[in-house]
Amino acid sequence: MKVTVLVGGVGGARFLQGLKTLLGDDGDITAVVNVGDDVWMHGLRICPDLDTCMYTLGGGIDTERGWGRIAETWHARDELAAYGADPDWFGLGDRDIATHLIRSRMLRTGYPLSAVTEALCNRWKPGVRLLPVSDDRSETHVVVTDPDDASGESRRAIHFQEWWVRYRAQIPTHSFANIGAEQATPAPGVLDAIEGADAVILAPSNPVVSVGAILAVPGIRSALRTTEAKVVGLSPVVGGKPLRGMADECLSVIGVDTSAEAVGKYYGARSDTGILDTWMIHSTDTATVPGVDVISVPLLMTDPKTTAEMAAVALRSAGLTP
Amino acid sequence: MKVTVLVGGVGGARFLQGLKTLLGDDGDITAVVNVGDDVWMHGLRICPDLDTCMYTLGGGIDTERGWGRIAETWHARDELAAYGADPDWFGLGDRDIATHLIRSRMLRTGYPLSAVTEALCNRWKPGVRLLPVSDDRSETHVVVTDPDDASGESRRAIHFQEWWVRYRAQIPTHSFANIGAEQATPAPGVLDAIEGADAVILAPSNPVVSVGAILAVPGIRSALRTTEAKVVGLSPVVGGKPLRGMADECLSVIGVDTSAEAVGKYYGARSDTGILDTWMIHSTDTATVPGVDVISVPLLMTDPKTTAEMAAVALRSAGLTP
Repeated sequence: MKVTVLVGGVGGARFLQGLKTLLGDDGDITAVVNVGDDVWMHGLRICPDLDTCMYTLGGGIDTERGWGRIAETWHARDELAAYGADPDWFGLGDRDIATHLIRSRMLRTGYPLSAVTEALCNRWKPGVRLLPVSDDRSETHVVVTDPDDASGESRRAIHFQEWWVRYRAQIPTHSFANIGAEQATPAPGVLDAIEGADAVILAPSNPVVSVGAILAVPGIRSALRTTEAKVVGLSPVVGGKPLRGMADECLSVIGVDTSAEAVGKYYGARSDTGILDTWMIHSTDTATVPGVDVISVPLLMTDPKTTAEMAAVALRSAGLTP
Repeated sequence: MKVTVLVGGVGGARFLQGLKTLLGDDGDITAVVNVGDDVWMHGLRICPDLDTCMYTLGGGIDTERGWGRIAETWHARDELAAYGADPDWFGLGDRDIATHLIRSRMLRTGYPLSAVTEALCNRWKPGVRLLPVSDDRSETHVVVTDPDDASGESRRAIHFQEWWVRYRAQIPTHSFANIGAEQATPAPGVLDAIEGADAVILAPSNPVVSVGAILAVPGIRSALRTTEAKVVGLSPVVGGKPLRGMADECLSVIGVDTSAEAVGKYYGARSDTGILDTWMIHSTDTATVPGVDVISVPLLMTDPKTTAEMAAVALRSAGLTP
């Protein structure tokens, strides 16, 4: 059973874990992973969502924190701070740095990110094919009121990581820009994974800066619209709040309410100009999305088994029998 | 009092510490540091001798090991090994990596090594001006019998670090090559430091791969021969054995005996074609070097105070009053 999932970081990784638990050895799962959060930091290429998926599925994740390596130490970070190295608001873990060193070296040698990811996965054996949506740089930047301008009049674009990690999304924000997206092309295998799937799932990831950044890569949206598989979306908003992260801050920037219904409408129906056949919302929510089947089930990914049940509903709604 | 010292790693750093202790605030010490050991490793530029000097003088060194950072951890190294990353015989410490990250990033941005070193020293405040002998790549490579060729017939050049760290110099070795040295030029300030010094000292560092690699940079040898300051060398060989490291292995490759006298003759007299005015040997050694004043004093650098006494003798032999 070929299932392709569009994912961001923590939420996407947990969904993949549940799906993997559900399908076991019968599953042929491809994750198309957001690269909008990727960033050069201290000369290293950091791919937060790819790494969160890889570590989560490979057993290396810090499960409490949800990102980064288990049993992590932070000596390099402390030393960088002692040097006064910029940026000082992003903590690289010592174990994690090894991943970035290998990735950065391979990228500089000319390997595309998809090949690098495959090489890294040789160690972690995530059991899911992890594909960056693009080998090209397609980064989410955020237009904010310049925090360094006392007058509050000028605007400036900062990298998503700076907005998210440094400012916790708590500064006046005006818009998102997918830098490089227009020139980006899907990585090898991405379009085939969407077009050749038995089901396509949008994980309950951030609809703006995770799934939205994936959709910003030319070719992805039209593949979702033309694939013969059903496209099932899972709401990342439950009871008017994001399952995790700061999806509400992101949604408000683009003028979408933080509700399961609003996000469903934002994705829209394939029968219209959108990308959804089915929209799964939490059992206590209600939503009407024209042209889209709305299913309400428990959407809390408390553990892989519960998440597997949720994934089973998604696959059944796509006409499959998991 | 302007004193310029040609140094390698551990031995050179300890000598500098003693000299700094001796001169206190009156000292104007410049260290011309070997870059022959420098290497790209996992995409990071490692400068072992510069870092050993910087950490030793700045209080960050692991004093027991003699190199690397105190309270070091090795998680990134272990993770690199878990990935199977090559090389697997060189251990990067987690704290140490921060230094390499900053250096590598600055080098890639276009800063010369001398400027990078100055920036790093802003944190460590070594109290000694640390100058790489050259901003150009001038690396010591070693021609060995190819360890991977079972026939034992073919030769191969490997980086000095591989010879030293991986093989512990215990493989058939034929010669050294200073790769890039011919095209290298002294870093800004190096020639002035030698020509304008009140005394020039060759630290008791490895005469082949530390001091020798410094001398391989065009311009250094002639500056030593023409400076108005006296040039005083300290023997790294005591009682027929190197003070530390594997200087004997290096000396045997170039056909020089491991004795204080042989090393003194290898450096040679300025009045002839060499670089020495004075050669300091350990009190239990004897040596005759034509054209060179030989002084015998305790040369064991057991602590900064003892080393300071040794440095005082060196300066007095150069006609100064420390």
